[in-house]
Amino acid sequence: MATSTTKTGQPLDRAAIDSVLRRRLFYTPSFEIYGGERGLFDYGPPGCALQANIVDLWRKHFVLEEDMLEVDCTMLTPEAVLKTSGHVDKFADWMCKDPKSGEIFRADHLVEQVLEARLKADKDARGVKVEVDEAKEAKKKKKISQKAEKLDDALVQEYEETLAKIDNYGGDELGELIKKYNIKGPTSGAELDPPKAFNLMFQTQIGPSADKPNGYLRPETAQGQFLNFQKLLEFNQQSMPFASASIGKSFRNEISPRSGLLRVREFLMAEIEHFVDPEGGKKHPRFEEVKNTKLTLLNRKTQLSGSTKCDEVTIGDAVASGLVDNETLGYFIARIQDFLLKIGVDKTKLRFRQHMANEMAHYAADCWDAELFTTYGWIECVGCADRSAYDLTVHKEKTGAALVVRETRAEPLVVEEFQIDLNRKKLGPKFRADAKAVESAVDALSQDLREKLSLELEKSGKIEVPTPGVGSGTTELEKDLIKIEKRKRTEHIREYTPNVIEPSFGIGRILYSMMEHVFWIREGDGSRGVLSFPPAVAPTKVLLVPLSSHPDFKPHTKKLTHRLRRVGVSNKVDDSSASIGKRYSRNDELGTPFGITIDFQTVKDNTVTLRDRDSTKQVRASEDEIIDAVKSLVDGEETWDDIAKRLPAFEGQEVE
Amino acid sequence: MATSTTKTGQPLDRAAIDSVLRRRLFYTPSFEIYGGERGLFDYGPPGCALQANIVDLWRKHFVLEEDMLEVDCTMLTPEAVLKTSGHVDKFADWMCKDPKSGEIFRADHLVEQVLEARLKADKDARGVKVEVDEAKEAKKKKKISQKAEKLDDALVQEYEETLAKIDNYGGDELGELIKKYNIKGPTSGAELDPPKAFNLMFQTQIGPSADKPNGYLRPETAQGQFLNFQKLLEFNQQSMPFASASIGKSFRNEISPRSGLLRVREFLMAEIEHFVDPEGGKKHPRFEEVKNTKLTLLNRKTQLSGSTKCDEVTIGDAVASGLVDNETLGYFIARIQDFLLKIGVDKTKLRFRQHMANEMAHYAADCWDAELFTTYGWIECVGCADRSAYDLTVHKEKTGAALVVRETRAEPLVVEEFQIDLNRKKLGPKFRADAKAVESAVDALSQDLREKLSLELEKSGKIEVPTPGVGSGTTELEKDLIKIEKRKRTEHIREYTPNVIEPSFGIGRILYSMMEHVFWIREGDGSRGVLSFPPAVAPTKVLLVPLSSHPDFKPHTKKLTHRLRRVGVSNKVDDSSASIGKRYSRNDELGTPFGITIDFQTVKDNTVTLRDRDSTKQVRASEDEIIDAVKSLVDGEETWDDIAKRLPAFEGQEVE
Repeated sequence: MATSTTKTGQPLDRAAIDSVLRRRLFYTPSFEIYGGERGLFDYGPPGCALQANIVDLWRKHFVLEEDMLEVDCTMLTPEAVLKTSGHVDKFADWMCKDPKSGEIFRADHLVEQVLEARLKADKDARGVKVEVDEAKEAKKKKKISQKAEKLDDALVQEYEETLAKIDNYGGDELGELIKKYNIKGPTSGAELDPPKAFNLMFQTQIGPSADKPNGYLRPETAQGQFLNFQKLLEFNQQSMPFASASIGKSFRNEISPRSGLLRVREFLMAEIEHFVDPEGGKKHPRFEEVKNTKLTLLNRKTQLSGSTKCDEVTIGDAVASGLVDNETLGYFIARIQDFLLKIGVDKTKLRFRQHMANEMAHYAADCWDAELFTTYGWIECVGCADRSAYDLTVHKEKTGAALVVRETRAEPLVVEEFQIDLNRKKLGPKFRADAKAVESAVDALSQDLREKLSLELEKSGKIEVPTPGVGSGTTELEKDLIKIEKRKRTEHIREYTPNVIEPSFGIGRILYSMMEHVFWIREGDGSRGVLSFPPAVAPTKVLLVPLSSHPDFKPHTKKLTHRLRRVGVSNKVDDSSASIGKRYSRNDELGTPFGITIDFQTVKDNTVTLRDRDSTKQVRASEDEIIDAVKSLVDGEETWDDIAKRLPAFEGQEVE
Repeated sequence: MATSTTKTGQPLDRAAIDSVLRRRLFYTPSFEIYGGERGLFDYGPPGCALQANIVDLWRKHFVLEEDMLEVDCTMLTPEAVLKTSGHVDKFADWMCKDPKSGEIFRADHLVEQVLEARLKADKDARGVKVEVDEAKEAKKKKKISQKAEKLDDALVQEYEETLAKIDNYGGDELGELIKKYNIKGPTSGAELDPPKAFNLMFQTQIGPSADKPNGYLRPETAQGQFLNFQKLLEFNQQSMPFASASIGKSFRNEISPRSGLLRVREFLMAEIEHFVDPEGGKKHPRFEEVKNTKLTLLNRKTQLSGSTKCDEVTIGDAVASGLVDNETLGYFIARIQDFLLKIGVDKTKLRFRQHMANEMAHYAADCWDAELFTTYGWIECVGCADRSAYDLTVHKEKTGAALVVRETRAEPLVVEEFQIDLNRKKLGPKFRADAKAVESAVDALSQDLREKLSLELEKSGKIEVPTPGVGSGTTELEKDLIKIEKRKRTEHIREYTPNVIEPSFGIGRILYSMMEHVFWIREGDGSRGVLSFPPAVAPTKVLLVPLSSHPDFKPHTKKLTHRLRRVGVSNKVDDSSASIGKRYSRNDELGTPFGITIDFQTVKDNTVTLRDRDSTKQVRASEDEIIDAVKSLVDGEETWDDIAKRLPAFEGQEVE
């Protein structure tokens, strides 16, 4: 699929949707009157309501449905925490500066763009008709074009191989590629400075006494959840498995923000950390409920072969075949899809892509991204990773905090092992200052070594024990000092570090992609944009439209507003002097699913008309019936078709 | 009122409530396993739910009720914006460093504490029984105490005057006071470094190309709303007045965070900017609805006289008498009180304090703080300020953006004024390069000067016009070049900069103070804490308690959970093996207002018991009736007394 189309099959015109979204203040560049600041956007009233509704649905779908423990942790984070998590050292992109123009590029993006431009120029020269991947083209903000120029066949192949591996290069390698392929500053033609790592975290100084930056804005909400693991487990009455969740802003100082809401420096995330016992195959108690969910999966093997052909499989089959690593991961993948479809994502524009082995964090066991297709191409909107025990382990090792689960074993575990007894009375006088070190070294001996040493001790009456840092590094112990025996030990408690399955949602990306999915143009006089939000997420559910400013309509409008609000249905009144058609079309752009017209008939008999945004069909009934119908539509209990069947149609006015 | 008491009249024990709040994970110090970071706290599950419920209620009470335009702006803010707003230069506290110990103090707090300690020591020496203001004492984290020591009468008076004005001193003055009163480092006894301004904003670097910090984390959500004024007015179809609103985190790098959740470095704010025409007395169309609201007001005059005696007046009277500046300000003060009472604030611990003239920002017309009484004293939780046209004006002047309202006048305005005609044909050749400057200087002439010059011109046929930067600074113009006439001009459009009334809520402070207000100890075996949250804000509404783990109870529990969730009532199951009484008392600490017990009777006849947290009384009825009752209680349609009257009491078990 190279270009994006609307649900109605029209080619999706990004300029058209952007114009609607900005005009209707879904979002707007921040600080515009100050010239703007790249990568920062404000949400206006409809965007803000849409976001709040999506977050609300997310909370119901995940947090409430599964009794997750929601936490709200601070964004300001001390350096030590992010040092341990690896972000201080590794959370960086490679940037390249053009010393002449002062421009800064993301090194991998630059190499990619230049090589792609050259390959295209080569095809032009060879007279090959290029099937343009518009979505991919659109991704390139700074389009680097080049005149037709033929390349050696070998070089073409080299370029293609380089591009396939572009995500894997480090800074030095990118620098070599830039030299080797003679890549220069695109505007200046100057030689570029070597790539430099640029950490993507915003640094700041917490408190008045620090003399240099000592903290960061968090790049993800996950760390706060890990640090509170002990307290959360305690709150959950020591019961496993359980999940925590967090909704909040995170920050990434992108080198080159672009693609509107898709690559920004401050963004809303919703993250779940599901803590699970690593033993027993990471089963999930509710997997049965989702196992028949059909998914579109793009697996690792297919990608390696250079294809993007997806499989349509049930999550049950995907887990059974081992394609998806375990039930818990599979459960969340299915639940993520449910959520995305609920808020309006087009299923034909949703796929789950498995991370390549080299793309995953080194500790991850498996990872699948929910990608949504947009005019910018396939966009990663939700990550679903098995982070294994990595995070809890590093924080535990750094701080000594017991980020573990201690469970009483149902059956005590009997372990047979080599145990060592030291004769401390003799050890002390013999080794003096070194006695403690010797003791520690002995304690640290592995079971294998203990077995070997026990035989040796039996045979020769003395052994050489490795004691790093003491004497020559080994110490001789005779059998009056040490005894090694195979004995049984009964373990009643099992201690383990849970693994973490992490579904991580970029709300802004989901919101934008979904808006593209529900956008279409109503043909007719003048083409009018429509945002067909599902009622549950629509910023406003009902528009109240009095026919005119006639004073007789006022009490009806007021009563309806009040009654709708009481049943929890958000509504707005448009009593401007514009024609009813104009007022409705304004609200089609705002995505308001239903409209109620108050007219002279209303004054006579308390009936009103109800209009459906998508079909522009109307019904007419009493205020009571219409309010019931709206409530039922918004709660998802009935569809418009249900309503149209049971309430009389109304064809009095043209209200497209 | 020197000490705080619970609703039941018990002295409020801060240690007891703190213990409950931390144990039940309402909040917890952030990064505790890393040694913690002062002034940063995480909210655990109940705190997070409580916060979400308060925010939800806020949104309904203000945003939905009045069709406010909610926006979500970024926290990252470029320096230029905060330079204009005055924050870069003025948003600072004075800090003092002890060069010996390295400790850093807020200079005004230090002077205050030392002088207060000396005054107390003086009273001790004079044998005066000091009525200790425990709340005030508690405020002092580092309590500076001193042995009894008598002071000169004159000095006592001087100290007292200094303390009364402590908020007004600048850095130099604080430095002088420290020298004059010989104030030393409290732990080291060393001479302190002179006070230095410490800007309270967190600084950071946006983008990869800046070579020094070029932005800040916002200290308030207001600026984003001001910058979007034009777009919001347009969204509102140019109609005035209107309000914008924003809910989000703000940041202040406190020199010395203290008092738990009350003085933190990262906090949730909810702010309203109500834009109003400065002409016509800032009336409010809905003032009638609130005018009989009774308030506890502490006015400026009373404070000046050294008293804190409040008046109980209606907001109608307060505005009529001029005590509160205008209707719009008064309207919001009343609405703020409504909101606070709705979420559980104790009316006897709420007052509105008017800012002293010198305490207000220089541009503010009037300002009232809603203060809540806690064990830390009276705490400012909501500010309600008339910010006049200050913010829109400074941003307009800086950027040239038209942050104004342009309204067609109902009646065109006829202005009589002196107008000037220049003969450009002659002006150009005569003044050449200076012609433009001369023209601008003439355009800039005031009406007064024009009148004077017109007389002069008539008399002598030429005039001297001030033309800064041209020639000697004045230029002679003869009557062939210039004509000055009194003429009438009709203005159809009125352009004005709106004034802003700003109610600004510190959600964390409100949340903490409210928790103190609803906390009490249930007497009985062992004293058990109870948090009597109103059902609307309680983290969980219903606890489901199966009598035991008997399998017959499971389907009932499951069905109830499901049914309650469907009617939107959050609930939790506690099927642990603890006694019913223990399970309920755990949930009293979590503030869960209602409990449903499933027992053997339930299995027989589908009846369950419903328990009221505050009275521990129970009723028994069918599942249907109990679900209806709970829904009605949570929605605030009935009280427990109503329910107890219409459903049969149950006294089967002791479930305190």
